[in-house]
Amino acid sequence: MRIDGALLERRLDELYAIGAEPDGGTYRGLYSTAWAAAGERVERWMQDAGLETRRDAVGNIWGRAEGDGKSIVTGSHIDTVRRGGRLDGALGICAGITAVEALLTTKGKPRRTLEVVAICEEEGSRFATNFWGSRAITGAIDTVDAEIAAAMRERGLDPTKIASAARDDIDTFVELHIEQGRVLESARTPLAVVSAIVGTAHLEVTVTGQPDHAGTTPMDLRRDALAGAAAMVQAVESIAKSLGKPAVATVGKLKVEPEQINVVPGTVVFTVDLRHADLGGRRALEERIRSLCGTLSQERRLGLGIRTLQEKAPVAMRAEVRALLARAAKECGVQATEMVSGAGHDAQILAARCKVGMLFVPSIGGRSHCPEEATAPEHLELGTNILAKALELLAY
Amino acid sequence: MRIDGALLERRLDELYAIGAEPDGGTYRGLYSTAWAAAGERVERWMQDAGLETRRDAVGNIWGRAEGDGKSIVTGSHIDTVRRGGRLDGALGICAGITAVEALLTTKGKPRRTLEVVAICEEEGSRFATNFWGSRAITGAIDTVDAEIAAAMRERGLDPTKIASAARDDIDTFVELHIEQGRVLESARTPLAVVSAIVGTAHLEVTVTGQPDHAGTTPMDLRRDALAGAAAMVQAVESIAKSLGKPAVATVGKLKVEPEQINVVPGTVVFTVDLRHADLGGRRALEERIRSLCGTLSQERRLGLGIRTLQEKAPVAMRAEVRALLARAAKECGVQATEMVSGAGHDAQILAARCKVGMLFVPSIGGRSHCPEEATAPEHLELGTNILAKALELLAY
Repeated sequence: MRIDGALLERRLDELYAIGAEPDGGTYRGLYSTAWAAAGERVERWMQDAGLETRRDAVGNIWGRAEGDGKSIVTGSHIDTVRRGGRLDGALGICAGITAVEALLTTKGKPRRTLEVVAICEEEGSRFATNFWGSRAITGAIDTVDAEIAAAMRERGLDPTKIASAARDDIDTFVELHIEQGRVLESARTPLAVVSAIVGTAHLEVTVTGQPDHAGTTPMDLRRDALAGAAAMVQAVESIAKSLGKPAVATVGKLKVEPEQINVVPGTVVFTVDLRHADLGGRRALEERIRSLCGTLSQERRLGLGIRTLQEKAPVAMRAEVRALLARAAKECGVQATEMVSGAGHDAQILAARCKVGMLFVPSIGGRSHCPEEATAPEHLELGTNILAKALELLAY
Repeated sequence: MRIDGALLERRLDELYAIGAEPDGGTYRGLYSTAWAAAGERVERWMQDAGLETRRDAVGNIWGRAEGDGKSIVTGSHIDTVRRGGRLDGALGICAGITAVEALLTTKGKPRRTLEVVAICEEEGSRFATNFWGSRAITGAIDTVDAEIAAAMRERGLDPTKIASAARDDIDTFVELHIEQGRVLESARTPLAVVSAIVGTAHLEVTVTGQPDHAGTTPMDLRRDALAGAAAMVQAVESIAKSLGKPAVATVGKLKVEPEQINVVPGTVVFTVDLRHADLGGRRALEERIRSLCGTLSQERRLGLGIRTLQEKAPVAMRAEVRALLARAAKECGVQATEMVSGAGHDAQILAARCKVGMLFVPSIGGRSHCPEEATAPEHLELGTNILAKALELLAY
C-alpha cells in the first residue's frame, strides 16, 4: 500500500488557494469566510475518501470509518496565521485524509474506529485564544468571550453547546507536521518522531537606570539601562547554550527609553522566550536567567523587574506511540530519529485525554509561518506513507 | 566689586517664566513668540545696565559699552529645548549682563569695547539646524531653508542679509554655563575652566541576521541579530571605559525587527554617540568600535553596516583665555580645575573667529534639558563673580 503523492500535492495546493492573500501566503482565521470554505472542501474530501462526516460544537470536522473500541485519530488544524504557508496544519489534514483513503481502498474496513479530524483552530489566528479546537475536544473550555461567541453564531455554531465537543473515546492521536525549523534539514534526515513538545515561559524584564546626557556624563557615573540589558541578552544566550539542547532562549523584543541618540538610556524592557522539553530543564533555564540578570543589575546599580507573561509545561509524547511510529518508519525503510518539538501543537493539548504521537518532515530552510514554507515532495510523500503505516498498525 | 546675586536670580526667574510650559519647564524655540518676548526683556536689561543695544540680521542681541580695539564679548544662547530648564543658555546671558552692569557701575567705562550677546539659537530648538546664531557671527551660514526664512520674516528679519551678521572684530568670547553633568558635583568642586569641547561622531550600526522561530531553531543554528548587537553594545561601553576619560560612547537608540516575542531577531539598528576632547582620541574610539563590531559580526555570521550620521571635530579652548579664567578664579579665592565639555556650546563655533574660553558651574544631580535643571545659588553667584573678574582683567 502506498499513498497517492500527486493527490496529496493537489489537495495541499487547493487548500493553500483558499484564503490566498494578495501579497502572498494564505489566511484562514477562525470562523472566517476562508476558514468556512476550507472546511467545506475538507469535508468533501473526507466523504470522497469514504468517511462519514460531522461537525462538533466548535466546528471541528470529523471523518469517521466505523470499527470497534476507542478511536484512532489523525489530523491537524485548518486555521493559519496571517500570510501563512502551504503546509502548517494543512499537511496533517491532507495527509490524514489521503492516508486513510489509501487504507480504506487497499485494506477495507478497519478493525478499530479510524478518524480524521480538521481541528478548527490552533494558531491564535483571529481571537485572543489558541488551541481552541483541541481544548474543546478535551473539555478544557470554560468560558467563551462575546466576540468568539458572535463569530460562532455567524457560522451556525451554538456557543452554549461547546461542552458537547468533548470526547473521552479517543485512544490515540497521531499527527504529521512540518518541523518548522532547520534541524532535520541540517542533519539530512527525512523524518523524525517527536519525543516531546517543549514547555515555554515568556518573561518580561524591565531594567531601570538613569537617563543622562551622553556627552556630559563620564562612563563611571552612568547607570546605563541598555548597557545592562545588553549584558543580560548575552547572558540569556550563553545560559541556553551552556544548558545544551533542547534548551532555547530568545530575546525577541527590546525597547529603549527615551531612545535618543545623545541620551544614556534610562529604561529598557525586553522579553525572554525560553523553552525546554522537560519541566526541570525549563525551570533550570529560567532560574539561571533570573539569577544572572539579578547579579548583573546589582553590579551595575540598576533596577530590575521580571514578570512572567505566560507559562506552559512541556508535554512528553506517549512512549508506546513513539515506538509504534518508529516501527512504521522502519517498515517504510526509514531509521527514525527522535527530536523535541520547539513549537506548540494540538497533540500537547490532546495528551490530557489520549495517547499522542507526532511525526515531523523537514522544512526547507526551516521557514514557516510565511509564504516560503515548503517541504520536498518526496518528504511529504514519505511522511504520509509512514503515517498511513502507523494508522494501519493501530487500526487494522 | 561683587555682582548682585539677588538680581541675577530674579533675572533667571523672569526669563524662565517666558515660554513656561503647562507641564513644567520652558520652551523658547527660535523666532517663536516666547523667543521674541525673551529677547525684548533681555534687551531692556542690557539697556538698564547702561549698554547700547542692537539686533543683527539673524536676531542676535548685542549690548555694547564702547572702548578701544576689538571687542571682549560674553553671553550665551536665548533659545531652549522643549521642557527646557532655567539655566542652560539663560545663565550665560543673565550673568553676562549682571557682571557687566557691576563693572560699569563700579569701574566705569571700559578701556576695551565690552559686549554682552544673547545668541538667537544654539539648541536646534525649532528647525533642522543648530548653532544658528554663532554660525551667523562667524559667517558660516551659506543657505537658508524656506521654513527658517519665513520664520525670520515674521520677526522682521531679512534672510537675504544674514551675511551682515558676521563679525571679525571680536577679540575674546567668554561664556559662563552650567556643566550639565555630575563631574563637578561628584568632585565637590564649585567651578571649572573648560579645556576643550569634545568632538562628536554619530554612527548608525545595522546588524543583519536571520529571523527564525524561537522554538524550532536550536541555539547553534541561529544568526541572532540582537544577540550580536548586544555584544556590540557591550563592546562600545568597554572600549570607551578602557580608553579612559574624557572618552565617552553611548548607544542611545536601538530597534529590533521583527520585534516579536517568539521570533529570533533578524535585524537590529542602533546608534553610537562617541566623544573625545582630541581628534586622535575620537578617531581611536571610533576605529576600535568599528573594528570590534566587525569582528563580532564575523564571529556570528551577521551582516554589518556602519554609517556616519554626523561628525564634529573637538575644539580646544584658547590657552591664554584658560589661564586668564584660572587667574580670575584665583582672585575670587577659588583654585580652578579644568574639565572637558562633553556637550557642544557656541564657543566651539566662535573659536573659528576669536579667542574663546568657558567657565562651568555645577549642575545639581547633573540634570539638564529638563525642568529639574538647577545650580546652587552660591555657585551661580560665584561663577558670575569670576566671570566679572575675567571681563575686568580683559577689558579694564
